[in-house]
Amino acid sequence: MREIAILGIGQTPVDEHWEKSLRELAGEAIFAALDDAQRTSADGLFVGNMLSGMLSKQENLGSLIAEWVGLPGIEAFKVESACSSGAAALRSGFMAVSSGEMDSAIVVGVEKMTDTLPSETTEGLATAADADYEAAQGLSFVAINALVMQRYLHFYGWKHTDFAQFSINAHANAMHNPFARLREPITEADYSRARMIADPINLLDASPTGDGAAALLLVPVEMLNPGSKPIIKIAGSSSATDTTSVHGRKDPLWLSAAEKSAKKAYQQAGIGHQDIDLFELHDAFSIMSALSLEACGFAERGQGPRLAQEGAILPTGRIPITTRGGLKARGHPVGATGIYQAVEVVQQLRGQAGPSQVENAKIGMTQNIGGSGANIITHIIKAV
Amino acid sequence: MREIAILGIGQTPVDEHWEKSLRELAGEAIFAALDDAQRTSADGLFVGNMLSGMLSKQENLGSLIAEWVGLPGIEAFKVESACSSGAAALRSGFMAVSSGEMDSAIVVGVEKMTDTLPSETTEGLATAADADYEAAQGLSFVAINALVMQRYLHFYGWKHTDFAQFSINAHANAMHNPFARLREPITEADYSRARMIADPINLLDASPTGDGAAALLLVPVEMLNPGSKPIIKIAGSSSATDTTSVHGRKDPLWLSAAEKSAKKAYQQAGIGHQDIDLFELHDAFSIMSALSLEACGFAERGQGPRLAQEGAILPTGRIPITTRGGLKARGHPVGATGIYQAVEVVQQLRGQAGPSQVENAKIGMTQNIGGSGANIITHIIKAV
Repeated sequence: MREIAILGIGQTPVDEHWEKSLRELAGEAIFAALDDAQRTSADGLFVGNMLSGMLSKQENLGSLIAEWVGLPGIEAFKVESACSSGAAALRSGFMAVSSGEMDSAIVVGVEKMTDTLPSETTEGLATAADADYEAAQGLSFVAINALVMQRYLHFYGWKHTDFAQFSINAHANAMHNPFARLREPITEADYSRARMIADPINLLDASPTGDGAAALLLVPVEMLNPGSKPIIKIAGSSSATDTTSVHGRKDPLWLSAAEKSAKKAYQQAGIGHQDIDLFELHDAFSIMSALSLEACGFAERGQGPRLAQEGAILPTGRIPITTRGGLKARGHPVGATGIYQAVEVVQQLRGQAGPSQVENAKIGMTQNIGGSGANIITHIIKAV
Repeated sequence: MREIAILGIGQTPVDEHWEKSLRELAGEAIFAALDDAQRTSADGLFVGNMLSGMLSKQENLGSLIAEWVGLPGIEAFKVESACSSGAAALRSGFMAVSSGEMDSAIVVGVEKMTDTLPSETTEGLATAADADYEAAQGLSFVAINALVMQRYLHFYGWKHTDFAQFSINAHANAMHNPFARLREPITEADYSRARMIADPINLLDASPTGDGAAALLLVPVEMLNPGSKPIIKIAGSSSATDTTSVHGRKDPLWLSAAEKSAKKAYQQAGIGHQDIDLFELHDAFSIMSALSLEACGFAERGQGPRLAQEGAILPTGRIPITTRGGLKARGHPVGATGIYQAVEVVQQLRGQAGPSQVENAKIGMTQNIGGSGANIITHIIKAV
């Protein structure tokens, strides 16, 4: 297997792009990534997307986008694992290039969620859960996460307001990210009085949806120009699953697929969690930040919120998270999110993160979650 | 890169399985493939499916099916490229095992198309075409193929009845396949008087939809028991795209992605088209059989129907096709079809094809088409 580098990155703002189609959004991100890499083509295209069939009446995104960006003929697929579709596409592109099947791959995550009625988008997102045993019982996706958070508060004895700093940090970091959807700071008071969505998840616990696309160009390290520095390398790439339904798990408060994929990624990279300089985690809801930090070894079981309270998650802290706004404030165009995370880690490793730059960042981790912990994909990205 | 063998095969009948859910169908095929391989688990799962979000309100099939077959935790994704989603999943599993990322992979194609209203299923299938420039103009998927066939009849001067033998051969072969949906023979008279669907495509030019699942177990050849014979090896695996819309092509009567992927697969296998003993092609409509035979080198441009008329496509002919019924008579549960094709080639190479056995078959080819020629994936499978 060959080592893989991320040579180019591109993204669109996360927003309500009513004036742009799926292919236009994807194209914008891909052209940016190709420009960034000073390339004009690639051998393959892997598209991360969850909802295009349901919300845009468009499947077969591989050929659609390949043609749109002027590369008709190349191998191209869509990869789907609900909200971790982006990272699933990255993982697929990684395997395709590392196997030697191709010498370069574009990986793009794209999602369009705001052209439809909110009820249609909500119905689409519910397909991430178990249709027969969760969604058909009336559980929306946020309702499932609300049950998890309710249980967490009860079991470990935290108060809802103990989660405030997760959202405050995300919004503070997004202020410096021109691609973020929500670029205004919030306060503890804002958090406490935010409108309830599904008790105990309120509006400021939940990430906004949005339209957006992000792209990467992957190439083998061995094919880079010898002089090019820094090399941004994928040092770990791993994925694991858990039961789709939360009620199917022995412990609904433990993300076993996060633990499993992170451990394998640490092993591949030859590091421990203490070597990670920043962690772009999947804060679709604030409770998921706590659970992810615990499953990946950064906090003891049940102690995730303490890292937020102590400031360890700030760009200046011990384990900075959501440094460009995270899902909470950059926004969560579901199938694109995993690629946004990787783009943001590369920005940090290149020293391009502006006021939320993590000083001397050398190793970043991304973790993308599909469903309520059902399909979790971890990447470790390293500047060498 | 490691060489890959198909160690196990499994399938369900293609039918209206109103009593079985998506996961149950997939599980049935997977358990059959594992039993066939005398294995009980695998490292990864790749699911080929197109319509589950739209028709079953279920995405995230990777984790759903992994859990259902008793393998929670393993890496699992859905791969989609419209009607070639099955072969796209096979190609993904092939790259995953050949790259060394995993030592075994289950590849399953599954589709459920008969629980919904026919209008809903038709709307779902239309997402294989270009939503903005084809489907939104009122073109259903069969209507697009009808325009292609109309053009073919006009341009090359064939009559509609010249295509009859494609359907007659498929039905004749399906009689001996217990997993086929339509197991009754048809005659030229039946073909001529069949109900018109979209002129010139009539009911007997078109493949039936259906519910079904088929599965393969992939392992590296180097990890097989030295004594195990015959080894069924994937000798070529290749995929290419074309414009999604038919009107976007220079020549709407040429499947350039079929030509491209077949040529590459021949090269990988070190053979020419004349070495292929049987060809499971994508006869979603009879016109596609002609176009596929031409693009892959078996017939001159515009001469595909002649192979049918001369009997070259029969199990005893020069280039047997649809030997177990093809899409036309085995049925076309879209995301599963590419895996059914591979299962059927393996049956032929093992000598398990009953009365439609191709004598002394050593090399078989599958070709799965997503959209009207937009995403075409070719595999060459060889007994050694």
